[in-house]
Amino acid sequence: MKTIGYAALNANTPLAPFIFERRALRDNDVAIEILYCGVCHSDLHQSRDDWKDWGPTAYPCVPGHEIIGRVVETGAGVTRHAVGQWVAVGTIIDSCQHCDQCRRDEEQMCREYPTVTYNGHDRISGEITRGGYSKHIVVREEFVLKLPDGLDPSRAAPLLCAGITVYSPLRTWHVGPGSRVGVIGIGGLGHLAVRLAAGLGAIVTIITRTAEKAAEAKALGAEKMLLSTSTEDMSAANASFDVIIDTVPVSHDVSPYVQLLDVEGALVIVGNLGDMAGFNTLPLIMGRRRITGSPSGGIAQTQEMLDFCARKGILPDCEIIPMQDINQAFERMEHGEVKYRFVIDMASLALP
Amino acid sequence: MKTIGYAALNANTPLAPFIFERRALRDNDVAIEILYCGVCHSDLHQSRDDWKDWGPTAYPCVPGHEIIGRVVETGAGVTRHAVGQWVAVGTIIDSCQHCDQCRRDEEQMCREYPTVTYNGHDRISGEITRGGYSKHIVVREEFVLKLPDGLDPSRAAPLLCAGITVYSPLRTWHVGPGSRVGVIGIGGLGHLAVRLAAGLGAIVTIITRTAEKAAEAKALGAEKMLLSTSTEDMSAANASFDVIIDTVPVSHDVSPYVQLLDVEGALVIVGNLGDMAGFNTLPLIMGRRRITGSPSGGIAQTQEMLDFCARKGILPDCEIIPMQDINQAFERMEHGEVKYRFVIDMASLALP
Repeated sequence: MKTIGYAALNANTPLAPFIFERRALRDNDVAIEILYCGVCHSDLHQSRDDWKDWGPTAYPCVPGHEIIGRVVETGAGVTRHAVGQWVAVGTIIDSCQHCDQCRRDEEQMCREYPTVTYNGHDRISGEITRGGYSKHIVVREEFVLKLPDGLDPSRAAPLLCAGITVYSPLRTWHVGPGSRVGVIGIGGLGHLAVRLAAGLGAIVTIITRTAEKAAEAKALGAEKMLLSTSTEDMSAANASFDVIIDTVPVSHDVSPYVQLLDVEGALVIVGNLGDMAGFNTLPLIMGRRRITGSPSGGIAQTQEMLDFCARKGILPDCEIIPMQDINQAFERMEHGEVKYRFVIDMASLALP
Repeated sequence: MKTIGYAALNANTPLAPFIFERRALRDNDVAIEILYCGVCHSDLHQSRDDWKDWGPTAYPCVPGHEIIGRVVETGAGVTRHAVGQWVAVGTIIDSCQHCDQCRRDEEQMCREYPTVTYNGHDRISGEITRGGYSKHIVVREEFVLKLPDGLDPSRAAPLLCAGITVYSPLRTWHVGPGSRVGVIGIGGLGHLAVRLAAGLGAIVTIITRTAEKAAEAKALGAEKMLLSTSTEDMSAANASFDVIIDTVPVSHDVSPYVQLLDVEGALVIVGNLGDMAGFNTLPLIMGRRRITGSPSGGIAQTQEMLDFCARKGILPDCEIIPMQDINQAFERMEHGEVKYRFVIDMASLALP
């Protein structure tokens, strides 16, 4: 199947139109017409080869792993999806399906590594995977999610990466009614963390360096705001959180936040990949506090999250852009100038 | 009650004999003749005022919080203990008894702070508490443990701090039959961690920098040894532990150990207080691994641990010394020249 997308051709030039072939459908494949695709920080990093130390980018690179679309064709053996249905695809599109992690529905931690939606290798053909900045995609049916009724397709896309990345640790750490949850960093991930935690019944506090965020915090559903630049406020909030989700995407000192955790509380890092300053053992030891992280979620949990969002009316705030504006969107995203996530309207793109 | 102990009179001179008064028994107090007292690294640090940033040492300081003795007198209202019984006292001797932590038997995390056995403040009189390097001690009955039959009193003392410090995280992280437990650092804490984890049914690996420890590791009950200086061995052991107990008492890079944890595994720091190098978020995020610590255990769990040790025949390896040798013992302990814990035989000390 011939399709068109936007691709990075190398690390230094803007993304540009790119025509390529999607594979012919295997028995268990679903072909999807992509209608919306979210723009994730990972898309920018991968396009620019920022992660070459962990694995270089294979060019042309078609980013995008927050995909919403409709089924347009199904393989002969497909049972889960039918032509015409609204579906979604997230950050992973295959895994071994037989290791302990896959068997407990944690395909994102597959022992043979999951196949990621772009810049991965197809498990059968070995070809480089290409993501959602394109009109069509072909995905093994087990990795295609159902978009529940009532979830606005034009705004649902960011749930597929940003949403599940913060929903999964809320579930791991048993967040529910009355849980005291802090969220650091109010961007794509952070604003969804606030809404999802509040949806689960938690008392949510936005932890921020700027007092001006108070109104914004309240609008998102946070009951409180904690000013991290105020020694007095931080001290008063000592040992008062069960879980803190840290979405700050750059290296920073976590010590002031660890102190905020109550006994056995967890600071979950989802934003920053790599070295981080500020690791003092004393609050960890004295309160059995935990520093941990979280790697997105499995397919079953992603479906659970979509269904939960539909039931609770939870959606991200999105700015919808045509495909042609992606390079400006990358720039604005880098400067934090989006509230809170870009979504590409794929109607803007057509094969010539 | 007049008694004699050994005290640090200031931060710089050796410990020396010191005669002082123990308080008259309150209704719920137990007076104990101390027969053995373990020597803990904390004793040395507190004597030398090494922790002045967190609170200065009040001199004269009588250290010692691994106490074994016999009840010699009881207050009018005491119901738990009787004269003549073998008993034990650990690192805490009082707490508020009504906060959430006390109510769930975690007095060591009491919201009003527990009263520590030495260099603390008595909750009623305010006087400085004095520890087990002495012939007698008076302790509120709820904080006096029963020494179970079959546990050699001359070797049991180190269980009261070193033992519970490593037993508690093994329980927190649900170590049981088949759990894969690593222990870093084979000293007072580490050798007990090996024995206790093995006693709980775990498969225990000693993680060490010196290949010569192989025989020692096996003798302690470890099934395996992992050479942390071998890149090859460390790489082969990637993601193969459920829990790692890190007893190394100095700052060190934990990154190589975090990699050894399996999905959702925990690295529990019990040895080093303060800043630590080496905090890379990537393995935390990708495997939901946890870095945490543990602060000794509550009274009920300490009793559970003593009973468990009696049942399983678990004891530390001790070198028994007279009180008069304490200053040399401190020096040898500093250089790691003890296998694995000094215990003071209090018969060596008498009131003049």
